[in-house]
Amino acid sequence: MTSDAMTSDLHPDQPSADRHSKTHFRRVPVELGARSYDIVIGEDLLAHREIWMPLLEGRQIALVTNELLASLHAPKVRDVLAPHAASFIQINLPDGENYKDWQHLQLIFDALLHHRFDRRCLLLAFGGGVVGDMTGFAAACYQRGVDFIQIPSTLLAQVDSSVGGKTGINHPSGKNMIGAFHQPKLVLADTRWLQSLPPRELSAGLAEVIKHGAIADRAYLEEVLANMPALLRADPEAMVAAVARSCEIKAAVVGEDEREDDRRAVLNFGHTFGHAIEAGMGYGVFLHGEAVGTGMVMASELSQRLGLITAGERELLLSAIAAAQLPMKAPAWSTAEYLKWMSVDKKARAGRPRFVLLQGLGQAFMREVDEAILDLSIKACLQ
Amino acid sequence: MTSDAMTSDLHPDQPSADRHSKTHFRRVPVELGARSYDIVIGEDLLAHREIWMPLLEGRQIALVTNELLASLHAPKVRDVLAPHAASFIQINLPDGENYKDWQHLQLIFDALLHHRFDRRCLLLAFGGGVVGDMTGFAAACYQRGVDFIQIPSTLLAQVDSSVGGKTGINHPSGKNMIGAFHQPKLVLADTRWLQSLPPRELSAGLAEVIKHGAIADRAYLEEVLANMPALLRADPEAMVAAVARSCEIKAAVVGEDEREDDRRAVLNFGHTFGHAIEAGMGYGVFLHGEAVGTGMVMASELSQRLGLITAGERELLLSAIAAAQLPMKAPAWSTAEYLKWMSVDKKARAGRPRFVLLQGLGQAFMREVDEAILDLSIKACLQ
Repeated sequence: MTSDAMTSDLHPDQPSADRHSKTHFRRVPVELGARSYDIVIGEDLLAHREIWMPLLEGRQIALVTNELLASLHAPKVRDVLAPHAASFIQINLPDGENYKDWQHLQLIFDALLHHRFDRRCLLLAFGGGVVGDMTGFAAACYQRGVDFIQIPSTLLAQVDSSVGGKTGINHPSGKNMIGAFHQPKLVLADTRWLQSLPPRELSAGLAEVIKHGAIADRAYLEEVLANMPALLRADPEAMVAAVARSCEIKAAVVGEDEREDDRRAVLNFGHTFGHAIEAGMGYGVFLHGEAVGTGMVMASELSQRLGLITAGERELLLSAIAAAQLPMKAPAWSTAEYLKWMSVDKKARAGRPRFVLLQGLGQAFMREVDEAILDLSIKACLQ
Repeated sequence: MTSDAMTSDLHPDQPSADRHSKTHFRRVPVELGARSYDIVIGEDLLAHREIWMPLLEGRQIALVTNELLASLHAPKVRDVLAPHAASFIQINLPDGENYKDWQHLQLIFDALLHHRFDRRCLLLAFGGGVVGDMTGFAAACYQRGVDFIQIPSTLLAQVDSSVGGKTGINHPSGKNMIGAFHQPKLVLADTRWLQSLPPRELSAGLAEVIKHGAIADRAYLEEVLANMPALLRADPEAMVAAVARSCEIKAAVVGEDEREDDRRAVLNFGHTFGHAIEAGMGYGVFLHGEAVGTGMVMASELSQRLGLITAGERELLLSAIAAAQLPMKAPAWSTAEYLKWMSVDKKARAGRPRFVLLQGLGQAFMREVDEAILDLSIKACLQ
């Protein structure tokens, strides 16, 4: 806890700290009309009760987290928040993408009904993408929709799943095939949780940070590459800046196209290949961000072969992916195998995959691709 | 098929038949901004391809129905519609409220994924409330939301679940606890399917028709009572008029309050008791409409004891319920038992049930009720 944060806590009437210190906290608004909300990014946000108190006070609250966090950071969250709730329960899901299914979603519904939670209750999702997606989907469906707040504990969740309201679970035939668009009321992206993140998970989150630069802001990509050492040790100042800029980029895209009719699909850069790698390897072998890292290597190969980016542009992108210590080589499958896994991608049209491609580094668009070029690109990226 | 319908079929460019014949078909718009849709009510709507063709043509289509209809009317629906689809599959769910659960919802997702249905696919819900609620919920969740059309085959589904976009499944602890608001693109309420409906199901549907009169239009309630013999034999002209007026009433309420923050709750007249009866007896023992019939007997008893309606007004309502051949006596449970089943009702606040009461016949509102008066009212209605 910084001394500023303590001051703010003791004197809640003073002006909000984000006007005074850029390392403190920042707000990124996600503009979606009646479903707008803020992402607040900073160190030790629990100490700033003026941020979350108005939404929590006096409600039936369920803190949904995973078994790992339940023994690590969740007690701190519970101790600070529970005294302000009308009632407070905690639901621990098993940790990992393998459990992102209906059976485990049901644990949330069971607990809410057992404790007689009504339609004005509030769910808190404290964890990574799995906890966020499942809690958000539970909030979307419980009594046909209740409020939820995201407290993402991983970098991937802070820069990706905290923006845009995508929620859901996996089906044996495909990732995130069952879900809903359901916006949180608030996101608390606290960089303190990133300190204890395993290096592999930090790298996975940096894949999405790199992606945001690649599709929307080349200068930001260069900055991320330059700051990589600080980011890899979860330096608070570097992290707050990176999370905030990533959220801004994603929020701008989502604000234009909430339900992914077209424009929002650019956020799927690296994901058509990435989803195929995740599904084909079996969920949980590659982390999502790792699969996206390798997916971006493949999608940039495809973009370069189509003459859409230069070798130099691709080199810069590959440098960032490598610096983030992400896997660069794709699983050695046939093109037919890749196509099989890609045909259930949600961007597909009647079974034919579509790809997000770069058009210059810093811009992206989506289209179908000739199978011969696809075949060559895949072969060039295999391990 | 009427001769007019055949003419319209052969000459699709002629003016729509609803301007020429009041027994033919009628359109009730449901006004919900970007989610607005029409309910079309009439005899043999499949013959009027101008109604449905623009929505169906060239899409991946899944006809979801139940096992009973699969061997009764579904072949006719399939034969007319399938030639216009890019691909067409049929999914048969087992028939009954007992199967309105996740396991059976999964059958829909399995089939859609197996046949590589993408986000532009269209689901058709052909059946009663169970098929409609499950198909609608599947459409709400599949790839985070796809289009669906309702073709309700029961009177209950035509006047109730076809309006307002409530979809969902049951949880062992409560009815419709897991679901979504997801509006159909079109509802085809074809009175021809009502001809083959068992008398018990016709009566169950009439319970909702009576409810619409009770909460919004006393003159309509009197008309329904007068037309009861025609309605009980599913006379097309009487049915088209009753379904259309019921849909108008429900559409007006839903248009004011899509997500049931308050106003929409008046549609739950008879439902707080009704849901308790359904849950307490075990789903499927009482038909939903039968439970609502008995629930209205109880809710009007409560309204009269609170001085909100006269004995004469209650008598008129009871006459209609009796004329529709609905059960009038409530299960002989203690008030504590009723309260237990009512505490998970979605209108409850922190476990305390709220009741929709009449304020004069033809108006309704919602409030909590003193337990002593509730106790007396329940006891007066037991068998």
